Amino acid sequence: MKIDSILAPVEEELPLVSANLGKIAETDFPQFSDVIRQAIGSRGKGVRPALTLLAGKFNDFRLEYLIPMATAVELLHTASLIHDDTIDKSPLRRGLPTLYSTLGDNAAIMAGDYLFAKSAELAAIPGNLRVVRLFARTLMALAKGELEETLTVYNWHQNRKDYFRRIDGKTAALFAMATESGAILSGAHESQIQALKDYGRSIGLAFQVIDDVLDFTSDEETLGKPVGSDLLLGVMTLPSLIYLEQHSDGNLIKKGFAEKNKGPELEEAITQIRESPFIIKESLAIAQGLVDDAREAVSILPDNDCRQALFALADYVLERKK
Amino acid sequence: MKIDSILAPVEEELPLVSANLGKIAETDFPQFSDVIRQAIGSRGKGVRPALTLLAGKFNDFRLEYLIPMATAVELLHTASLIHDDTIDKSPLRRGLPTLYSTLGDNAAIMAGDYLFAKSAELAAIPGNLRVVRLFARTLMALAKGELEETLTVYNWHQNRKDYFRRIDGKTAALFAMATESGAILSGAHESQIQALKDYGRSIGLAFQVIDDVLDFTSDEETLGKPVGSDLLLGVMTLPSLIYLEQHSDGNLIKKGFAEKNKGPELEEAITQIRESPFIIKESLAIAQGLVDDAREAVSILPDNDCRQALFALADYVLERKK
Repeated sequence: MKIDSILAPVEEELPLVSANLGKIAETDFPQFSDVIRQAIGSRGKGVRPALTLLAGKFNDFRLEYLIPMATAVELLHTASLIHDDTIDKSPLRRGLPTLYSTLGDNAAIMAGDYLFAKSAELAAIPGNLRVVRLFARTLMALAKGELEETLTVYNWHQNRKDYFRRIDGKTAALFAMATESGAILSGAHESQIQALKDYGRSIGLAFQVIDDVLDFTSDEETLGKPVGSDLLLGVMTLPSLIYLEQHSDGNLIKKGFAEKNKGPELEEAITQIRESPFIIKESLAIAQGLVDDAREAVSILPDNDCRQALFALADYVLERKK
Repeated sequence: MKIDSILAPVEEELPLVSANLGKIAETDFPQFSDVIRQAIGSRGKGVRPALTLLAGKFNDFRLEYLIPMATAVELLHTASLIHDDTIDKSPLRRGLPTLYSTLGDNAAIMAGDYLFAKSAELAAIPGNLRVVRLFARTLMALAKGELEETLTVYNWHQNRKDYFRRIDGKTAALFAMATESGAILSGAHESQIQALKDYGRSIGLAFQVIDDVLDFTSDEETLGKPVGSDLLLGVMTLPSLIYLEQHSDGNLIKKGFAEKNKGPELEEAITQIRESPFIIKESLAIAQGLVDDAREAVSILPDNDCRQALFALADYVLERKK
């Protein structure tokens, strides 16, 4: 199923989020506005704000709360990508030059900070303190997840638990906030809030697992970066960890990390992971399990077009190719 | 007057802020805790959190609100310094190695993000939405002020209005938030909130003007960086702008900026500014005017030891030598 048709139940509201985002670049300083316009220009499919809107549709859908909140969710994502690109020194994002590459790291750091703050301001518009605190905790989780990744680079001594704690912070927390905030702001019952939050967390985790699998199984053209680039940059993801479980002594990753990608070991490990039917199958089974969890969580919600959309979105996460 | 005796009316509360800050480093990931401990280790005199506490003393001083808020104020300041040091590639801050220098820019960007988020969480503890919004707007102002500075580097075509807009964002907004939040959280009357906010903004502006004057009039040992380093890095501050007003055609700054500090022109301009009795006197007179504004603003408050502290703090800003 195509993403546009999955998101049909919120197709009227999503353009309002885009319009809201556009307004952020209207400031009293033209050069600054240009920077902000570029920063928010390179957007994705809008899955995260759509989750907020969908989650809000099961109860009292208040447009004046849910549009600012969905905008805050998308903007928080945008701001974190700007800092990620700056850290990774990435020239491109979704085929467009990154803010880092056009303006340098100084402007990119500050533009990211500004958008974090702007998203906090948007999250405060509905006037709900629970959502404000959720927002702050999510930003903490994001930064902590990314920092843990930075601190454990070229450290092969990691396990699945470390990996899931890290991706819970750097990816799943934002998905969980997207759905939880939509539920809270529509006045959902506590059991529904919990269900939608669990759904968000599970598909967030699945999303990152698939991302990490594609880093091995896709090709350079689709990825826009070399195959296995996580491992080449010293980042252990699920497929590498499963590989490590199978080769606990004298493995290629240990040697490769010791040389920080100066030898052929990591390339060899990438080939072995790519070609191992078990490692990829096991990783995909874990993602499937997470998607099952997500579907299970929202099964308590009324059976309507929005629940269908959540089901379809969960499957979409599994099926995506880039 | 020494800063410790000025802050005597809040000497019992300030250690609670320090204790609160220490707790932030307690996390579930030891390596991460080490980073956070280092990040909050290099603190200043605590003027900003003291302002929040002092502002809260004129009405209903609620410790359970004002300690988290004062901690949020100090942490926001700390986080912004971490990003500033990363942007400026500064090896030292207050004689200690910066996070940037010990861990690199990646960890420093993310640690700053985490502390921004943590300070937002603290600012939400009192459960006051007005304060939460004030916090978000202040972070926006900080980032915008810094970004404007970055975007106008080596641009001599600036005036006093540009300068004051920039320092209002990068410095004064945080001072204003410190006092305004203390006033709001102690249930002050609107006129007192406004007075304390105006006081904070004025001493914040004066603080930055003095900082920018010291950059020319102090010596390398006291500054910990070369004399005139703002101008050498292409940043126009008040003394440079007054110099420009006096030498509107063919001046040294224009030539120096065109060569981006590769010629002797900026060194010559720095010497001329240092030795000009008018430029320094005029800059100090502007700072004095701002301090007068600050004193005037809080003259409507009851005459007690806290108002005396605010008066003394305003004078302290003018007199400081580093």
